[in-house]
Amino acid sequence: MNLTLTDVRLTPILVADPPLLNTQGVHQPYTPRLIIEVVTADGVTGVGETYGDTKYLELARPFAEKLKGRQVSDLNGLFTLADEVSVDASRVSGQVDVGGLRGVQTADKLRLSVVSGFEVACLDALGKTLGLPVHTLLGGKVRDTVEYSAYLFYKWAEHPAGVPAERDDWGAALDPAGIVEQARRFKERHGFTSFKLKGGVFPPDQEIAAVRALAAAFPGHPLRLDPNGAWSVATSLTVAEEIGDLLEYLEDPALGTPAMAEVAAATGVPLATNMCVTTFAEIQEAFTRGAVQVVLSDHHYWGGLRNTQQLAAVCRTFGVGVSMHSNTHLGISLAAMTHVAATVPGLHHACDSHYPWQSEDVLTERLTFTDGRLTVPDAPGLGVELDRDRLHFLHRRWLDDDGTLRERDDAAALRVVDPGWTTPAVPRW
Amino acid sequence: MNLTLTDVRLTPILVADPPLLNTQGVHQPYTPRLIIEVVTADGVTGVGETYGDTKYLELARPFAEKLKGRQVSDLNGLFTLADEVSVDASRVSGQVDVGGLRGVQTADKLRLSVVSGFEVACLDALGKTLGLPVHTLLGGKVRDTVEYSAYLFYKWAEHPAGVPAERDDWGAALDPAGIVEQARRFKERHGFTSFKLKGGVFPPDQEIAAVRALAAAFPGHPLRLDPNGAWSVATSLTVAEEIGDLLEYLEDPALGTPAMAEVAAATGVPLATNMCVTTFAEIQEAFTRGAVQVVLSDHHYWGGLRNTQQLAAVCRTFGVGVSMHSNTHLGISLAAMTHVAATVPGLHHACDSHYPWQSEDVLTERLTFTDGRLTVPDAPGLGVELDRDRLHFLHRRWLDDDGTLRERDDAAALRVVDPGWTTPAVPRW
Repeated sequence: MNLTLTDVRLTPILVADPPLLNTQGVHQPYTPRLIIEVVTADGVTGVGETYGDTKYLELARPFAEKLKGRQVSDLNGLFTLADEVSVDASRVSGQVDVGGLRGVQTADKLRLSVVSGFEVACLDALGKTLGLPVHTLLGGKVRDTVEYSAYLFYKWAEHPAGVPAERDDWGAALDPAGIVEQARRFKERHGFTSFKLKGGVFPPDQEIAAVRALAAAFPGHPLRLDPNGAWSVATSLTVAEEIGDLLEYLEDPALGTPAMAEVAAATGVPLATNMCVTTFAEIQEAFTRGAVQVVLSDHHYWGGLRNTQQLAAVCRTFGVGVSMHSNTHLGISLAAMTHVAATVPGLHHACDSHYPWQSEDVLTERLTFTDGRLTVPDAPGLGVELDRDRLHFLHRRWLDDDGTLRERDDAAALRVVDPGWTTPAVPRW
Repeated sequence: MNLTLTDVRLTPILVADPPLLNTQGVHQPYTPRLIIEVVTADGVTGVGETYGDTKYLELARPFAEKLKGRQVSDLNGLFTLADEVSVDASRVSGQVDVGGLRGVQTADKLRLSVVSGFEVACLDALGKTLGLPVHTLLGGKVRDTVEYSAYLFYKWAEHPAGVPAERDDWGAALDPAGIVEQARRFKERHGFTSFKLKGGVFPPDQEIAAVRALAAAFPGHPLRLDPNGAWSVATSLTVAEEIGDLLEYLEDPALGTPAMAEVAAATGVPLATNMCVTTFAEIQEAFTRGAVQVVLSDHHYWGGLRNTQQLAAVCRTFGVGVSMHSNTHLGISLAAMTHVAATVPGLHHACDSHYPWQSEDVLTERLTFTDGRLTVPDAPGLGVELDRDRLHFLHRRWLDDDGTLRERDDAAALRVVDPGWTTPAVPRW
């Protein structure tokens, strides 16, 4: 058994994404992802996936070079190695990312977002080498299936005319009836019984109406609303007052820990976040102030699956719930999320996943939800197989792009139809 | 590869312990430990070690039965399994343990103290099966050696006359000169350059004098003083005022989080603890109140090596330091401590270990300190080998005991020479 890493391959791709709306704009017709392959001296290949915008590629390339010659099992060492990769100061704003609402942008978080893809690839290769599933490398699954929620979006029927794009069969959803119809489809197709609505798109009254329509159509089903910090404290409290009793939790109603703490202090509705707590550095203030009751981990931000377990331990210690966030991702990351979610005790909320929106993938076989759940794979590694033809096809699309799609920018995508559009100031309402 | 656990062996033993003094009394001439062996279907044996008092044995026995037939890799499942073992209410006081100053006694902590021995045994067996050292199963070492501190004790030259006991060659240490001489020996024999004095034995003035003598004899060497919560807040602050500038940290000067918080608020001397934070449940209050600056993890209490990593993550998140506590233990636990310490980033303080005081062990080869450090073993599993003859010999001693030594009770041991002795009320000074 030789665990030395002899090769690392990075393949940036562009994958189709439907015209899903959020408070910053609309998803581009194609979104960048980075597929990572690590190869050991034994010829075992492990796969990982992370964000694919240029700022991530800039870090992934030198990181990949440093990785060669190291042991695939040296997971703790990945963080030390990442610290050696310098981050261009222009990539760090300290502000909320404009590329898809990923919380604060710091050098460390950029590094961790890159490390996560490599960590998953290493875990996959290590698992395949040892004949053990990734969840076993994480200490073993405590559940056999992981529940996911339906991720409802306001959406257009199609991308703007004249823009190259794939078609989807979901139709438009721009009002309560459209959202309920979308939820019905999610339930029919995948069996989801928990629904999250991405809000912050329309004035709060319209989104309140959508939640009420969902509650009427699916009585007893857990519901969530996530305006991505678009509301003021006062608006957040009004919404909490009006539909709090219908919600499992309210996700990031207002932006930042001080505002979230103010909301939390004045309502009994649990607040979840994937925006004010996206790094370990943000935890102390948020937890001490009681600003959040559920942290939605995105293993990409947090530095991988083992860091996600550590985040879960921190949350458990402070009586804060934990579940999983999702940004546009493919099957590799969904498998990774499923493995780690299977090992986290006290996972009391269904995890988010954009995956049903992704018509394209790089796997030979798509992961399928049954009753809104994924079965935790017991095959060695992640239990997924890369489809090299698809990978090549999607990489070709990335190569052919003139650069406009390589950086996800939801505001720019909206400007195609509304040239005056800029990312709205916060609070928007 | 068959990872099914087919056999579990529990061997309670009594090991020689010198007449070391602490605020509750004196170490018994022999102290109980439990040696755990797990055997897989492939015939691989893993070893673990934990506290051996009857209350631990009572839990370990039914736990061992439940373990058979499960996978040795199912480490997360150990906690679920432990929850199924009922704890006799009489074993739970909610007060500080009288059996050697192990912090609060709760049912969960008793369970975790038992789980830890099994977790280490499972990691050892899994590592041997996979051909990987335990540190690799924990994500890989981030350092090649782990530093330990000399654990200085006030001690008698020998156990009371008429009591069966082993002799030691350390001599008495009952004043500053004796402590300095003991420290010199520790340095000569093992190369330690960091010193911890177990205090709470004599009035604070005498212990202050001992620390001053150490500082004079070993200028620049990190020093610590640990009275096990024997002092009032006022006394703690007086000591901090007098010798704070000589100390790396002051360990548990006063008992409990409120008192520690009061001390911490009034002094700049960092406070360490192994008494007010010994469970995850105690963290929130202590960290929120700023009561401690360093948590000394005893992997036995905390539920094993992976929980110790999680504790370290919680501490890191809250800017609290972490190092390792030690109660009387043998080479198996020392190897386990070394493996986990090797994987914890930001371990800024030398770890404690009683090991140099233990003349007896159950290993074929003793672990040896060089320059106060242990080299992290890279052999599969823990990298230690059980000496079955020694194990049998020490178990025979346990079998032959009439029951008085099977429960560690430092106050009872002191009553042999001072029949009126009771565990002192706290604060003692």
